[in-house]
Amino acid sequence: MVDTEHTPTQELTIPPLDGEARTAAMDRQAQLTKPPGSLGRLETMAADIAAMQSTPTPAVDPAVVVTMAADHGVAAEGVSAYPQSITAAMVDNLLEGGAAVNALCAATDIKNVVVDMGVAGDVPDGVVDHRIADGSRNMAQEPAMTRQQAVAAVEAGHAVFKNAAADARVVGLGEMGIANTTASAAITALLTDSSVEAVTGHGTGIDDETRARKVTVIERAIETNNPDPSDPISVLQAVGGFEIAGLAGFTLAAASHRVPVVVDGFITGAAALVAAAISPRVTDYLLASHASVEPGHAVQLEALDLEPCFDYGMRLGEGTGAALAIGVYRSACVAHREMSTFAEAGLETE
Amino acid sequence: MVDTEHTPTQELTIPPLDGEARTAAMDRQAQLTKPPGSLGRLETMAADIAAMQSTPTPAVDPAVVVTMAADHGVAAEGVSAYPQSITAAMVDNLLEGGAAVNALCAATDIKNVVVDMGVAGDVPDGVVDHRIADGSRNMAQEPAMTRQQAVAAVEAGHAVFKNAAADARVVGLGEMGIANTTASAAITALLTDSSVEAVTGHGTGIDDETRARKVTVIERAIETNNPDPSDPISVLQAVGGFEIAGLAGFTLAAASHRVPVVVDGFITGAAALVAAAISPRVTDYLLASHASVEPGHAVQLEALDLEPCFDYGMRLGEGTGAALAIGVYRSACVAHREMSTFAEAGLETE
Repeated sequence: MVDTEHTPTQELTIPPLDGEARTAAMDRQAQLTKPPGSLGRLETMAADIAAMQSTPTPAVDPAVVVTMAADHGVAAEGVSAYPQSITAAMVDNLLEGGAAVNALCAATDIKNVVVDMGVAGDVPDGVVDHRIADGSRNMAQEPAMTRQQAVAAVEAGHAVFKNAAADARVVGLGEMGIANTTASAAITALLTDSSVEAVTGHGTGIDDETRARKVTVIERAIETNNPDPSDPISVLQAVGGFEIAGLAGFTLAAASHRVPVVVDGFITGAAALVAAAISPRVTDYLLASHASVEPGHAVQLEALDLEPCFDYGMRLGEGTGAALAIGVYRSACVAHREMSTFAEAGLETE
Repeated sequence: MVDTEHTPTQELTIPPLDGEARTAAMDRQAQLTKPPGSLGRLETMAADIAAMQSTPTPAVDPAVVVTMAADHGVAAEGVSAYPQSITAAMVDNLLEGGAAVNALCAATDIKNVVVDMGVAGDVPDGVVDHRIADGSRNMAQEPAMTRQQAVAAVEAGHAVFKNAAADARVVGLGEMGIANTTASAAITALLTDSSVEAVTGHGTGIDDETRARKVTVIERAIETNNPDPSDPISVLQAVGGFEIAGLAGFTLAAASHRVPVVVDGFITGAAALVAAAISPRVTDYLLASHASVEPGHAVQLEALDLEPCFDYGMRLGEGTGAALAIGVYRSACVAHREMSTFAEAGLETE
């Protein structure tokens, strides 16, 4: 079923982490006016970002959260608590500034960019248009997209980085798309070699019966389309979504420019898994945000070797967890850069 | 040894939480454009603050972190990794803007106020002066302060709130004082009926041998001064510190004005225990920040029924954890106030 002809045309090179910048950052931490190590994980956050950005003075600003939206044909299987039309309506809301990620970005001085990767239905002006199609196909019956579409969506993610986030020092991933936890569970099962049962949750709030159907739908989609788990484009083609493919491409582009990428919840975690399958070094540039309620999120974080910054029982997406976490990373970087050293403060310690 | 004559002259009345405001806030959360409950703990944070502030539209701005400094005679027992002179030097650094809490407040748009509650040595202009004495006495040999001083320090905390934070919607607690984890461990042992061993940690980074001495010093101080654990002023007099007493008074004043108080680490936790012993209802107005490395912090949080917002292995004090947490509470309140409702967004859900 799966077309293997098309592959991404743009090969992005991701540079290795800068170990010298990390060492310089840790040296600076040891000279700041505080007991050594007393800022705990904030110190390693700053040093990690220093290694990614290749500078002893890491920074998060300007910061951008990119929220990619798309529809999913599999919504027709009744796997979501909401009808497909909510995707386009929520894109409206995102552009009007009324969605959760808008408020959290405003509270934390982060720019939010909304991208239409393939919403079914009209979306208003103001959205960044990379629409691949009017939603993906129903993966329970046929591949979610053509291989050409999968590659085009990944490459659109590169373009979004170049056009909307090239000046960002840190980016965050966000998404909107009814039924996209279904696609994400399928991707996560395939790319982490997990059972569908283990990585399928209640999404936006479905009941146990609907969740059981969701598991069956995903298992059928994998069986029907039979993707090659060692070929991430094949996985996207079979069970992906346009926003997930776009976020994977965006992540690869950011990492290739040494820009750290803050992963949000379960759907962006699936995108990060796809990016890591395309180019494993991308994981060096990933930063965690929250621990999602979705059971597959912990599986993703373990596969990506990410430790969440907080666990507030969130399951909203859009980039809400990423926006919150960028505030923490900012604090870590500002403390790193702006605190006085013992020498600057004229403090002698024995 | 303990004088029981003096008691606080100002009796502050702390109002009950506003249950109607909490209900109105939760009703609003249910109408916001997101799956019900999907912002998790951010929703209850907003509702908690609504009940404290008695408004369905809670806010944290303007926010103030108050950092109170004082010296401790017990430093002479060699219980800290740093000499006593560091307290005054760090007050300089705080006023110059070079300390960790300065950077974290700057990163999160919070005002920081530095108060001299009893530093030994000269401190520069710019500090809010409520100096009770040139440091407390060595509690291993005699009461840390007179009862009159304890009462004066608590009442100075009231004045700090009135003069420096009366327009704040949320305040955070911070402190600086060499050897103040020793006083805090003594207070925590007494007010939570815990063993000194269980609540004594490594402070700014002492070795195991020094920590063992610290335990002995605290046990001797409690035995020598024999405070009445049911009388918080007696506890302050015996084993307290001026900054701890001041922060307790500040906390009571804030709560009496319906201003939520974000507790920082172990020293501010001891101040919160003192405040709760003086007026139990104050606990309704406390908000957690981080989980400190100090083992007694978890004991305090359990006694105060507070759940930390994050655990970054911090042990710096100054109000650093409170500043970080205020950023999270701000995000919760901004989302609560600024998100659209389903009706406003013209979104129909079945």
